[in-house]
Amino acid sequence: MAKKPQNAFPELPKIPAIAGVRIAGVAAGLKDNGKHDLFVAELARGSTIAGTLTRSRCPGMPVEWSKRQLPGGKVRAIVASSGNSNVFTGGQGRQLVENTAAATAKLIGCHKSEVFLASTGIIGEKKEVTFVADKVPVGVKALRKAAWYDAARSIMTTDRFPKAALRKVKIDNVDVTLAGIAKGSQMIAPDMGTMLSFLFTDAKIPAKVLQSCLTRAVDRSFNCISVDGDTSTSDTVLLSATGQVKRQPKIERANDPLLRDFREALEDMTGELARMIVRDGAKKDRLLTCDVIGAESQRAARNIGRSIVDSTLVRVGIAGAEPRAGRIVMAVGKAGERAERDLLGIAIGGVQIAAAGETLPDFDAKAVVKHLKAGQVHFTINIGIGRGKARVWSAL
Amino acid sequence: MAKKPQNAFPELPKIPAIAGVRIAGVAAGLKDNGKHDLFVAELARGSTIAGTLTRSRCPGMPVEWSKRQLPGGKVRAIVASSGNSNVFTGGQGRQLVENTAAATAKLIGCHKSEVFLASTGIIGEKKEVTFVADKVPVGVKALRKAAWYDAARSIMTTDRFPKAALRKVKIDNVDVTLAGIAKGSQMIAPDMGTMLSFLFTDAKIPAKVLQSCLTRAVDRSFNCISVDGDTSTSDTVLLSATGQVKRQPKIERANDPLLRDFREALEDMTGELARMIVRDGAKKDRLLTCDVIGAESQRAARNIGRSIVDSTLVRVGIAGAEPRAGRIVMAVGKAGERAERDLLGIAIGGVQIAAAGETLPDFDAKAVVKHLKAGQVHFTINIGIGRGKARVWSAL
Repeated sequence: MAKKPQNAFPELPKIPAIAGVRIAGVAAGLKDNGKHDLFVAELARGSTIAGTLTRSRCPGMPVEWSKRQLPGGKVRAIVASSGNSNVFTGGQGRQLVENTAAATAKLIGCHKSEVFLASTGIIGEKKEVTFVADKVPVGVKALRKAAWYDAARSIMTTDRFPKAALRKVKIDNVDVTLAGIAKGSQMIAPDMGTMLSFLFTDAKIPAKVLQSCLTRAVDRSFNCISVDGDTSTSDTVLLSATGQVKRQPKIERANDPLLRDFREALEDMTGELARMIVRDGAKKDRLLTCDVIGAESQRAARNIGRSIVDSTLVRVGIAGAEPRAGRIVMAVGKAGERAERDLLGIAIGGVQIAAAGETLPDFDAKAVVKHLKAGQVHFTINIGIGRGKARVWSAL
Repeated sequence: MAKKPQNAFPELPKIPAIAGVRIAGVAAGLKDNGKHDLFVAELARGSTIAGTLTRSRCPGMPVEWSKRQLPGGKVRAIVASSGNSNVFTGGQGRQLVENTAAATAKLIGCHKSEVFLASTGIIGEKKEVTFVADKVPVGVKALRKAAWYDAARSIMTTDRFPKAALRKVKIDNVDVTLAGIAKGSQMIAPDMGTMLSFLFTDAKIPAKVLQSCLTRAVDRSFNCISVDGDTSTSDTVLLSATGQVKRQPKIERANDPLLRDFREALEDMTGELARMIVRDGAKKDRLLTCDVIGAESQRAARNIGRSIVDSTLVRVGIAGAEPRAGRIVMAVGKAGERAERDLLGIAIGGVQIAAAGETLPDFDAKAVVKHLKAGQVHFTINIGIGRGKARVWSAL
């Protein structure tokens, strides 16, 4: 058997067409290097949409546009451009967005408010107001039924590999399909690394319900990863539902038991895409998985987990294969969430090294050192005060 | 003239005795390597004290002790040990602290509640309950009037040089003296880097007023520096006032105009000590100074400044001498403080590169690149919405 290369790229699944979705990923000339740079999706009439967008107080112009259209809950087209982020570009950038939406709406035959926009690339570089609008026809002409691989390539910037995932699930007894692409880049990059993901399903789900499903899934997937602790001005996740599946029972509430498997599949799929992003940012595939349990809430657990995986000192401690609780205790303490030092428990690689606020006297330090030097590092932190838990991933 | 070495240590001022203060810094055997490791200060009867202690939710045992005594406002002794932090050490660590305070109180002839404790060193390593108490007599025996240099050395862990500062100032027409020592370490260190500072004055100032002066000074000095974005479980700043100065008018309110110069001198001195800590953590003396102006409040300005200097991507951008606004805009956006993208202005090394939310078309990019490659990097960020400002420092 051939030796597996250290940085093997994940193999993309063979994703079928999703009824009501046509997509394209093309090299339209937005990037100077001739690589794929324009993503277009066309959705059937009646499609609903949900989204989560960056919380940055200085968001990009496309984010601002999509945020404004989101409450409408209707989508006919998504356009994402790669190479220039259209952030910090003033009135000119705003005009660029307007022109792109208008051009797309005309080509697709819909209202501007049904066009969603995203972008990734350099911040603060102004382009002609027709920079993207001029290229949209190339993308629209390329639209076809299952061009997932080209689509995933077209949103890449500093990514090493394209990312896509697929889930098949039932709503009642009806088969529905979920598919999505994502991009996310490593830390030491010449340009800003943005997280984009576009998800599609043929299920029939009202926009409000779809939003509830997406928010929960993103909270447990994309919001649980960290490559460098920095937040992009362009982060965008959009989930479109075409409703083209046949004979699906009507869904009106997010907590409808019929939706349980769908929600789980969505959470699972976004988790897979999120882990691909972390893996893209990791040198030699070194990953840190941090389970936080016993926190005050899921949100508190996630914040503590992120404080741990983002901490420079914790990371230096892993690099030095240090079999100690100290830096982890520090990172729990600085997270700002409720914690009780005297209840804290810590395990590294399955070896309990601390319990009830004290380092254990006789834990197997050699086993911990060996684990810290291996590819996949795993922490479990028990806060000991509640039932909130979260799993957080980071590249090492 | 001899060429100044790149990492020249700052020359310590010649600090005189402060009436009512005796100090000692000794090698008491707490560290295995025979270096200085125990600091003791004895304060005259009637001395007041103020303090700011780490906000970590998992603080050390000595922090817990000092926090409990602080509302009393009275101090007769301070004991700081270096090499072991006594954090995450359970009941045994609590007993260690009790024993240290009791032993010191007995030797000095005061109540336990007038003894303040601090520590720095490895987290989670348990020691005998008399570990420090046994050594306090060595420190007390060494007490003398102006042993500032030994004192500054005795609180060092991974620091490269000792840190001390002096200010002489008037309250009304009476000369008072302020002096202090500090420690703070670099990022890539085998142990946790803690920030400690002990400040002394012969002025007569009630504890409550002293606390107000100290809080403001710390907010504008120690709280405005960042070496690695991590927060120690043991950070401690204590300011003691012996009141031994002659004929000083009585001060009862923090906003007494007579205190203006004192407050300014305190802020100035803590700023000098804070910059020494940053400089200690800097490779080749490379420093980043970030001025944030026009923010909603001083606190908002500081948070935005810290978000900028702590950002991995901003730091990578400086390392790459990137003459762009992008990563700074990102860091402003993620700080969580109020900001208006379309009002933002940015200058690097005095060169305005962006204004009113847009990159300027013709700024001198060569000059910016040259500045970013030099030793001292300076950013000015204008948020454009208020009057809050802060200056934040970081090692590069």
